[in-house]
Amino acid sequence: MNKQLKVFSGSSHPEFCKSICNHLGVEPGKSTTVRFSNENMMVQIEENVRECDVFVVQTSASPVHDNLFELLIMIDALRSASASRITAVMPYIPYIRSDKKDRPRISITARLVADLLKTAGADRVLTMDLHSAQAQGFFRMPVDQLQGAGPICDRLREEEGREDWVLVAADAGEAKDLGRYANRLDLPMAIIDKRRDGDDERPRAVSLIGDVRDKVAVIVDDEIASGGTLIEAATFLKEKGASKVLATATHPIFSSNAAERIDSAFIDKVFVTDTVPLGAHQQSDKVEVISVTRHFAEAINRIHDGRSVSELFSTKKPMKQG
Amino acid sequence: MNKQLKVFSGSSHPEFCKSICNHLGVEPGKSTTVRFSNENMMVQIEENVRECDVFVVQTSASPVHDNLFELLIMIDALRSASASRITAVMPYIPYIRSDKKDRPRISITARLVADLLKTAGADRVLTMDLHSAQAQGFFRMPVDQLQGAGPICDRLREEEGREDWVLVAADAGEAKDLGRYANRLDLPMAIIDKRRDGDDERPRAVSLIGDVRDKVAVIVDDEIASGGTLIEAATFLKEKGASKVLATATHPIFSSNAAERIDSAFIDKVFVTDTVPLGAHQQSDKVEVISVTRHFAEAINRIHDGRSVSELFSTKKPMKQG
Amino acid sequence: MNKQLKVFSGSSHPEFCKSICNHLGVEPGKSTTVRFSNENMMVQIEENVRECDVFVVQTSASPVHDNLFELLIMIDALRSASASRITAVMPYIPYIRSDKKDRPRISITARLVADLLKTAGADRVLTMDLHSAQAQGFFRMPVDQLQGAGPICDRLREEEGREDWVLVAADAGEAKDLGRYANRLDLPMAIIDKRRDGDDERPRAVSLIGDVRDKVAVIVDDEIASGGTLIEAATFLKEKGASKVLATATHPIFSSNAAERIDSAFIDKVFVTDTVPLGAHQQSDKVEVISVTRHFAEAINRIHDGRSVSELFSTKKPMKQG
Amino acid sequence: MNKQLKVFSGSSHPEFCKSICNHLGVEPGKSTTVRFSNENMMVQIEENVRECDVFVVQTSASPVHDNLFELLIMIDALRSASASRITAVMPYIPYIRSDKKDRPRISITARLVADLLKTAGADRVLTMDLHSAQAQGFFRMPVDQLQGAGPICDRLREEEGREDWVLVAADAGEAKDLGRYANRLDLPMAIIDKRRDGDDERPRAVSLIGDVRDKVAVIVDDEIASGGTLIEAATFLKEKGASKVLATATHPIFSSNAAERIDSAFIDKVFVTDTVPLGAHQQSDKVEVISVTRHFAEAINRIHDGRSVSELFSTKKPMKQG
Amino acid sequence: MNKQLKVFSGSSHPEFCKSICNHLGVEPGKSTTVRFSNENMMVQIEENVRECDVFVVQTSASPVHDNLFELLIMIDALRSASASRITAVMPYIPYIRSDKKDRPRISITARLVADLLKTAGADRVLTMDLHSAQAQGFFRMPVDQLQGAGPICDRLREEEGREDWVLVAADAGEAKDLGRYANRLDLPMAIIDKRRDGDDERPRAVSLIGDVRDKVAVIVDDEIASGGTLIEAATFLKEKGASKVLATATHPIFSSNAAERIDSAFIDKVFVTDTVPLGAHQQSDKVEVISVTRHFAEAINRIHDGRSVSELFSTKKPMKQG
Amino acid sequence: MNKQLKVFSGSSHPEFCKSICNHLGVEPGKSTTVRFSNENMMVQIEENVRECDVFVVQTSASPVHDNLFELLIMIDALRSASASRITAVMPYIPYIRSDKKDRPRISITARLVADLLKTAGADRVLTMDLHSAQAQGFFRMPVDQLQGAGPICDRLREEEGREDWVLVAADAGEAKDLGRYANRLDLPMAIIDKRRDGDDERPRAVSLIGDVRDKVAVIVDDEIASGGTLIEAATFLKEKGASKVLATATHPIFSSNAAERIDSAFIDKVFVTDTVPLGAHQQSDKVEVISVTRHFAEAINRIHDGRSVSELFSTKKPMKQG
Repeated sequence: MNKQLKVFSGSSHPEFCKSICNHLGVEPGKSTTVRFSNENMMVQIEENVRECDVFVVQTSASPVHDNLFELLIMIDALRSASASRITAVMPYIPYIRSDKKDRPRISITARLVADLLKTAGADRVLTMDLHSAQAQGFFRMPVDQLQGAGPICDRLREEEGREDWVLVAADAGEAKDLGRYANRLDLPMAIIDKRRDGDDERPRAVSLIGDVRDKVAVIVDDEIASGGTLIEAATFLKEKGASKVLATATHPIFSSNAAERIDSAFIDKVFVTDTVPLGAHQQSDKVEVISVTRHFAEAINRIHDGRSVSELFSTKKPMKQG
Repeated sequence: MNKQLKVFSGSSHPEFCKSICNHLGVEPGKSTTVRFSNENMMVQIEENVRECDVFVVQTSASPVHDNLFELLIMIDALRSASASRITAVMPYIPYIRSDKKDRPRISITARLVADLLKTAGADRVLTMDLHSAQAQGFFRMPVDQLQGAGPICDRLREEEGREDWVLVAADAGEAKDLGRYANRLDLPMAIIDKRRDGDDERPRAVSLIGDVRDKVAVIVDDEIASGGTLIEAATFLKEKGASKVLATATHPIFSSNAAERIDSAFIDKVFVTDTVPLGAHQQSDKVEVISVTRHFAEAINRIHDGRSVSELFSTKKPMKQG
Repeated sequence: MNKQLKVFSGSSHPEFCKSICNHLGVEPGKSTTVRFSNENMMVQIEENVRECDVFVVQTSASPVHDNLFELLIMIDALRSASASRITAVMPYIPYIRSDKKDRPRISITARLVADLLKTAGADRVLTMDLHSAQAQGFFRMPVDQLQGAGPICDRLREEEGREDWVLVAADAGEAKDLGRYANRLDLPMAIIDKRRDGDDERPRAVSLIGDVRDKVAVIVDDEIASGGTLIEAATFLKEKGASKVLATATHPIFSSNAAERIDSAFIDKVFVTDTVPLGAHQQSDKVEVISVTRHFAEAINRIHDGRSVSELFSTKKPMKQG
Repeated sequence: MNKQLKVFSGSSHPEFCKSICNHLGVEPGKSTTVRFSNENMMVQIEENVRECDVFVVQTSASPVHDNLFELLIMIDALRSASASRITAVMPYIPYIRSDKKDRPRISITARLVADLLKTAGADRVLTMDLHSAQAQGFFRMPVDQLQGAGPICDRLREEEGREDWVLVAADAGEAKDLGRYANRLDLPMAIIDKRRDGDDERPRAVSLIGDVRDKVAVIVDDEIASGGTLIEAATFLKEKGASKVLATATHPIFSSNAAERIDSAFIDKVFVTDTVPLGAHQQSDKVEVISVTRHFAEAINRIHDGRSVSELFSTKKPMKQG
Repeated sequence: MNKQLKVFSGSSHPEFCKSICNHLGVEPGKSTTVRFSNENMMVQIEENVRECDVFVVQTSASPVHDNLFELLIMIDALRSASASRITAVMPYIPYIRSDKKDRPRISITARLVADLLKTAGADRVLTMDLHSAQAQGFFRMPVDQLQGAGPICDRLREEEGREDWVLVAADAGEAKDLGRYANRLDLPMAIIDKRRDGDDERPRAVSLIGDVRDKVAVIVDDEIASGGTLIEAATFLKEKGASKVLATATHPIFSSNAAERIDSAFIDKVFVTDTVPLGAHQQSDKVEVISVTRHFAEAINRIHDGRSVSELFSTKKPMKQG
Repeated sequence: MNKQLKVFSGSSHPEFCKSICNHLGVEPGKSTTVRFSNENMMVQIEENVRECDVFVVQTSASPVHDNLFELLIMIDALRSASASRITAVMPYIPYIRSDKKDRPRISITARLVADLLKTAGADRVLTMDLHSAQAQGFFRMPVDQLQGAGPICDRLREEEGREDWVLVAADAGEAKDLGRYANRLDLPMAIIDKRRDGDDERPRAVSLIGDVRDKVAVIVDDEIASGGTLIEAATFLKEKGASKVLATATHPIFSSNAAERIDSAFIDKVFVTDTVPLGAHQQSDKVEVISVTRHFAEAINRIHDGRSVSELFSTKKPMKQG
């Protein structure tokens, strides 16, 4: 695209944007977000963006709704300032887990967020590891989805003793992702079978499908929020004889006192990426952050130049259905 | 409309909704908003709404963006739950002051909010006192706009000594509203002339157009946020010889320590409505709240029955342009 | 809804429509589909539908694209004939498995189909068992999704010897549905772990997570197309010591010689529903068809009357995310 | 347009696409269409198309709905693969004759097809000889319509004995096109007057307006489907004294045994173009195919370069209305 | 429809609306159109229309653009005043002849008008005799098209000596309509063959296809504007031996001095309808106006009640294509 | 933008377009508008515009609706002729004063006009001095709004005796604009207080807020239509002791006999711009026209090149709300 490339950052994760810009060799675009006493924000884009190819970096981080709204305002401002194309770079998309109607009269809010982005004026989205692959269909615009499995598995391959590893999904519903990691790392799998006693109970681990006895159980998930699911799984795997528990997740929400709880749980190490910023109180010696800004920078470069993004992760498969 | 009327409340101002429902003689609809540890919300409508004529009450109150997003989610949930018609009852609309592009590369966010409501699935809006009358044109759906001037002037007429009053606009830009009050109360006007020294300075009161010497100055505005504008105006009017200062505003945002500052300012009394809830620390003996829920209830009734809402405030004017 | 209810049938599965109409106590609407020598079709609605609440029944059956297009034409004709509301009743939606972009530069065709239905003029969809729950979000209109698990589990509960059953997913990707059946029937689960040797190979069963030795393995899937996946799984489970193999699937596509192959495979019985018609050559003594037209009729009745459809399957769950 | 030009072919008429590509001096784009056992298709675009100016060639040929749907899927895939502009090159558009509502409660399916193309993501259409000029207005995007009359009349001018020709329309409804040919070839016209006895009868030729006695009658139409209309007309013209019958039509559908029936009819020769492929059993010694791929290639070149397409056929006319 | 029926009139043809209202037994709705000194109009709907089923009557009459714009404003006002359904009753639609792109870089303005009506908020259109049947497809909403041929032929059947009549189209392009009249009246047809000498010349009658010698030629058209086409045709038919010339047209535009020119032409009588008002200077003894307001009233009644409009003119035909 | 720049003119103000083209150094694009006898127009764009960056200049001038419609047709024609981008250059936008719903059941016609422009296919708008800043939010596309205050104040600064000037708004509703001028010229303000006796009366000047005695009163407005408002104000200011009255307005509609009335009023001089053409009978010695075509040309240049337009008028302000 023979338009000028510009990258702007929202307030949620400026370091992520800076790091992308470093990789790209450009300066972050100048903009100011003012918060009035009535909490309303005003975003002013501080440089000309007419006919530019603009990328706006904003992730889902606390305060989630302020940040989401700041993104919508920025896109609207850029659109009315005559930007040529606007790509929302959302390493982690808010509400992406609200992707189905699993109880009556609720909103598929991930779909709503996709619609709001469209309404504000976004032309494309660049993200990593949607909670479900289907969510890509919620967006009425091209979506480039990077895969955290790449950088994470690259890092895991540096670990020793992998011959004793078993990959574990904390829930049958998450087994699909597990397969992707198992395929890449050539490891066996196990799945925790959770059941619900009554309609209103939370599901409880009742059995382990597969075997982790005397093995290193590596729990794979796409995000860690409060850590509750993870820690319950680790405890259960310990009961089932696992010698050690590791965990990996693309998006480290680490809400409440997640870091602290992980510190005191039967978990040796947790690998996450930097799609979500970790504040001071979210640090833990057990947590290792793998940066994926290089991957985002490379994708932005390819989007801007009109080169293939899918080449970044070749996944040729024979075609089959049913 | 031969559909069932249902009224639901968001989290921002449940008392307002309850009071409306009392006037209407209906029970508020049942819904639950859950906030997950990652701050995402899930709203579940807890009763059947198929083919119903649904009103959702949500105002702009702190936390503004959470409340706005909750409203969007509720509307989306109601839409996919097959509600027949959804009216967003927004006594005070967030971002309604962001109605023009008075600096380069900003968003007309009031327009964006209108578009987001449409995208979520709202069919109509019921509100009171838009900051500018033009903002009604931002909505691609019918908007019923109630006028706070009615109940406020009814209350002001109960005050004594009105023969000494002068209505004052704190800025030439707000003079239009002033006229509406002056006409209703048959009172003289004055306008504070504010100027800016340099491009980056805040405007400062430089002179008073009109006269308040030995008069009771009544400052008229549509909203009070931090109270800064109001208090500056009161101080300036005192300098100009006003014997006393009163104030009236439809929407009491009362951000920061507005109530406290009003308490210690040269202001005798402030009349506001209950379109925005006042928390414990926002109370002041000088502030009197005039309830407008009866007016909203009457408007909902008329919208539901297909009777005229404009009859509620007759404003016949001869037709003229230019 | 105080509009007249009318039910029309496309060419794909008229018996299904007739059975629904019997349950509803109405006559199927009259329409004629003419196929010209150039293969173009003309659908004429043969009775007045102005202001009616119209349901059009069409499933995905061979010839798939002719039937899908006939549905689009019918909806367009009904719309321009001033039908008040049009619900596409699609027991099985074509392309519903094409719900993600799992290789570069392909279409999420399930989303495209949803968009085409919207464009033609559909107001709602009624279906059963989407391949993934997320696909509901592809539709910009209310979707009611019935669950085949209800009638299927009702039938399975009549079988004897269930204490020896293990529910099996033929692929980790299908484990989520499995959980729904396991919960309802209170049975253990196992999952076949499939891997791919090289990028271009089809995935091959490499191990069984869980245990079926001397058990009755019950393979659960949402559809059976050519039966290849099912028969491979049955063979693999036999190797793993299963004493017997049963299978259940909502949608019996039974393409190619699926029925014949099932007849000669290590499978005792297959339970399917009648969402897809089975032709003469698709019959097999091993296949039992469970009718779900009563469920569709009940849902249509509730949609028409504005009563809750979700009451048909209560699935209260505690609210949790992450 | 400083974007790369790429031309892809659907399955309906690959020779047509290849011939266009030869004229353009480009290789056809690589894509694969897989048909699953459940008849669903998956189209994978096998090369990068980001920021490209893409043309997709697909005509209306058997199986019509499969081919139409393949086109919609290809466009959707190209759109989500970030093609810059997508032009549907449709030499013959399916359903283009369904352009009016000449009986109650039918669909104007040509309009529906136009809408579906828009929904899938097409930006423009390039076609030849719409059945009615008005159909261009069905498309909410620019349409370039080539005229078959140019190449066909060029070929007819090579025939001898044209001084004895009379151009004939088989129906008063087709007389408009006739005028275009008559003007170009400077020939007299005649029109077959068809009437219907009762409401349900097919129209029957009752008289000839104009005269063909001892003349060569040249029947002009835009398409030949089953050939029934053509052969009836030829027989009628023979009765009316025509010495010989020729025919010309842009689009040779040749459904059923059209070729065979033409062979045995009172028709000397039929001139058609290659907008629709003729299979082995559709050949006839009486049929001559005039290629128009050069015209399509030239139009594609001009669309790509931003040069006028209308210059290809100058039709200056004085402006007049009513 | 259990909504109240209201009929409003624009400024173009109030008598037509009044006559419709008489047939319906309702009072015309009250509205005022003010024209400011800057030519801008303001339309105020003077009675409540919430939840009403509203019909707005406006035809194409001088000043055409003022009237068209008044209609758009009325629809917009009704929409924002919460009318439940708005039907534009347009006996004659402006620009309906601009239905094709017969020269480069012009607008298909009939399509644009349809889009503008949609944008303003019209839900349906009721009209008579579109210039081409295809134009119905321009509207993205239901269109009911009445046929002037019914009332006109009813009137013509009262004339004597019809055994000597020949129906004549003034141009091959209009022959299709001719067939409709010929079928109804069971009369022979003739067509004037017009050719153009050079690209910039107006077409000129060069021959008559068919025969009118010693016959009464009845010229059939859909509209008469300046009358030029009609009078040229009459003169030509006189040359060809016609004993008398009659004419019929649905829409009497009668621009310039059409009436006067008809008075002095070789035309005995012209039958038109009242879809367009005739001013004082547009009267002629030769012109007979057939009122169609009863037909519009009946159609409005049926639309309002949800009864079939197509029953008003049964046109069963066998289905055929190609 | 590496597309060719082309500028076309509608019929309303060709001199304005020519002057812009002179400043830009380009020839105006060739197009022809034909008016048929039925008043319908046909616009033919007479040169290739594929892939061009097109600007169409049309203002609001008599006949307003013909000119507005001509603009819509031109945009539609350009769109279907494959223009790359279409900017409506509207120095004065018709109906821009109809920007609020100040009586029941009227249209916010300025918003409707914005929607119609969008529907026709406009991508952007370039204008000067909207009646209210909020109206920019009516447009769902980027709007560049030039400020007449710049060139007008430049001219006023050349006048002598400015130390005696007082800027006056003829109505409290127009006070906002006044501030903009007062700031630029550093002058005091006064405002005429108008009241209405009864509901149906026109508002009448009852008092002057501020003081003009022995001063030169300079009335500031955005447009002068019939001149009534202006002349009433001048008379009132004379009563209030003003020594002289000047006036300034961006848009000189000058309807009816405005020029003549100004000539005989207590007004010394009126400064206007050339956004609206003044015909022969609209001339007055008291009226001075300041050309703004250079500003429009500069803005077009910047829009075309993707350079900032807001730099043309720096208005940095501190950010504040409420």
